[in-house]
Amino acid sequence: MIYFDNSSTTKPYSEVLDSFRKVSEEYFGNPSSLHGLGAQSEKLLSQAREQMARLLDVQINEIYFTSGGTESNNIAIKGTALMHKGRGRHLITTEIEHPSVRESMEQLKELGFRITYVPVDQNGIVKLSEIEKAICDDTILVSVMHVNNEIGSIQPIQEIGQLLKQYSKILFHVDFVQGIGKVPLDLRASHVDLCTISGHKFHGLKGTGVLYIRNGVKISSLISGGGQEWKLRSGTENVAGMVAMAKALRLTLQKQNECLNNMLKIKDFLRRELEMIEGVTIHTPAFQSAPHILNFSIQGFKAEVFVHALEEKGIFASTTSACSSKRQKASNTLLAMGIPEEEAMSAIRISLSYQNTLNEAEQFIAAVNEAVGRLRKVMK
Amino acid sequence: MIYFDNSSTTKPYSEVLDSFRKVSEEYFGNPSSLHGLGAQSEKLLSQAREQMARLLDVQINEIYFTSGGTESNNIAIKGTALMHKGRGRHLITTEIEHPSVRESMEQLKELGFRITYVPVDQNGIVKLSEIEKAICDDTILVSVMHVNNEIGSIQPIQEIGQLLKQYSKILFHVDFVQGIGKVPLDLRASHVDLCTISGHKFHGLKGTGVLYIRNGVKISSLISGGGQEWKLRSGTENVAGMVAMAKALRLTLQKQNECLNNMLKIKDFLRRELEMIEGVTIHTPAFQSAPHILNFSIQGFKAEVFVHALEEKGIFASTTSACSSKRQKASNTLLAMGIPEEEAMSAIRISLSYQNTLNEAEQFIAAVNEAVGRLRKVMK
Ligand SMILES: Cc1ncc(COP(=O)(O)O)c(C=O)c1O
Ligand SMILES: Cc1ncc(COP(=O)(O)O)c(C=O)c1O
Repeated sequence: MIYFDNSSTTKPYSEVLDSFRKVSEEYFGNPSSLHGLGAQSEKLLSQAREQMARLLDVQINEIYFTSGGTESNNIAIKGTALMHKGRGRHLITTEIEHPSVRESMEQLKELGFRITYVPVDQNGIVKLSEIEKAICDDTILVSVMHVNNEIGSIQPIQEIGQLLKQYSKILFHVDFVQGIGKVPLDLRASHVDLCTISGHKFHGLKGTGVLYIRNGVKISSLISGGGQEWKLRSGTENVAGMVAMAKALRLTLQKQNECLNNMLKIKDFLRRELEMIEGVTIHTPAFQSAPHILNFSIQGFKAEVFVHALEEKGIFASTTSACSSKRQKASNTLLAMGIPEEEAMSAIRISLSYQNTLNEAEQFIAAVNEAVGRLRKVMK
Repeated sequence: MIYFDNSSTTKPYSEVLDSFRKVSEEYFGNPSSLHGLGAQSEKLLSQAREQMARLLDVQINEIYFTSGGTESNNIAIKGTALMHKGRGRHLITTEIEHPSVRESMEQLKELGFRITYVPVDQNGIVKLSEIEKAICDDTILVSVMHVNNEIGSIQPIQEIGQLLKQYSKILFHVDFVQGIGKVPLDLRASHVDLCTISGHKFHGLKGTGVLYIRNGVKISSLISGGGQEWKLRSGTENVAGMVAMAKALRLTLQKQNECLNNMLKIKDFLRRELEMIEGVTIHTPAFQSAPHILNFSIQGFKAEVFVHALEEKGIFASTTSACSSKRQKASNTLLAMGIPEEEAMSAIRISLSYQNTLNEAEQFIAAVNEAVGRLRKVMK
């Protein structure tokens, strides 16, 4: 099996599953319980929080555990809107965000908020000037993703942060889900107020995530109750899941040091080889793009057909993002880049992890060549 | 170790952890992915949903997976309020609900909703007539818990359901977190519209839960995005966690058949023995109470001191609910029952699972007797 769909989800590291089991079995107490079993569990949770903070180079009390990237995006956006609606009712985001950002914004519209969707250029990159233009007197939030999940373009987060620093009433939210462990982001230097992370994208477990909230920033809670996570996110904590996520991030960042160059080599190889295939257009920009995502179309083939042809050879790739693949809609990002709908409907995304090898990439290219040849024949 | 704090959380069954690992490792695909790995994962998720539905005797499409009881309570209450605010802005609940119900209600107050907290009698049981009295023209939701988490009193859910059937505009939400697997509840016969379940209370994993939504009932989503769970709850599904939860419930209901009588015997034994100890008052009512919870005070001792004395003997009990224990506040339920604050501050809760034995109960009683004697001497 060649798994090239790591932007949809990753295989949990075996060591991560070991930790999950150990914590679930031996330290199963409720962190809120007053007795020793509770205290042990609470201690593990704190250690996981410390580790996440250290790995992200932020303060311990800036790490809020959640059930994943979707929840973190929802809390960041709706929590800001509910807390600061007195200050203003305008939010800015881009045309290429993940549905959890877009839908949160759309839900806010129903509550009387205004949303500006800033366009991107033909490389899928948002322009600073467009964000600046969109800012109003009553803007309370700008939400921009770091690495786009469909084509891998990297947004100018630090520049946007610099710009927004001048507007003391605007909070800055960054969806870091695809970038973490692959494309560094300095949260402080970029003046990020809120940042979303999802555990299952770096070999942690599904149902685990983080919302970073910069010290001093106040937002409302969406899920209230027992007061866990400094009252921002109630619910008995998934201690084992959070320990697993911290471990997964540690291992991933280690591998980033060791394997990033190799990943870049694989991506370059894939890009070069794909460009040589007749009818292939590469949508991922050559510069300012993440090392693990490559999006391309093959003229004349529906993405679905091609993905299935690859699967017959044991290769798992993706039509677009997992979220929209079932609905068989063209990728939002490609449309926003000005790519015609028909071409967008033939787009295929491959996304790597540090576990993939050059040999797998070679097999992939051979499979693409073979499938293109075969399918072209059938069509004639 | 004698673990008598199962209402706070339970130890996951070993078989449940086996399933979790197997699914996480071998079927790690994203259920939304179009390829075979995604399809396998989607299939496991459907099977878990089917199993939950069968065990709860409801339809498959009435089971919505969430991250736990707190989230389910929040969605049920806030989702109803947001969806039906045009219909009315009044909600009814009781004085003894879990903080995730109470706090959801309090947050709604800030958005202009009115909340009525219905009182309970000296047994911690809500009166039907009080609920009837509270109903207004613009009532949209009644939320009543099934088994109280602090004293174990069972609420007359079926009678309340019968009453509410006459009011077509009122939805009925039941927090079933403490009752499931111990005290049967027929969701259909009780005309329940929304029902909350949490996996870690029956030897499943933390961070897993269900919201039952009766077919035909519409509520708003709190966490939106990719459209998972029929658009009610977006986010990449925690497939392994949900498979684990379904298995945990199946095993628990099997054990309920085999072990419920034994649990009742243990509870009776504990009750009888505790009543014979000088200064003990039992708060859990003798009738209409769950088989696994027993709440009592020992005159003159702060609960905390006593819980620690038990812990020295390897026995884990609880002051009140895990949620309020750290805040060292008296139990809401006991106060609502009219118990004086000082007495409430000395309340201890023990909560059983099907794994506990009569022998453990005997050891517990011996430990209580010994500790009472020793502490009384020290105080003299
Ligand atoms: C950019 C981006 N943001 C958010 C998410 C949502 O994260 P999760 O799957 O943990 O809900 C994803 C992945 O689905 C993503 O790619
Ligand atoms: C009655 C009741 N409702 C809801 C909850 C919350 O469930 P969870 O711990 O899964 O958030 C609990 C337990 O904490 C509970 O006892």
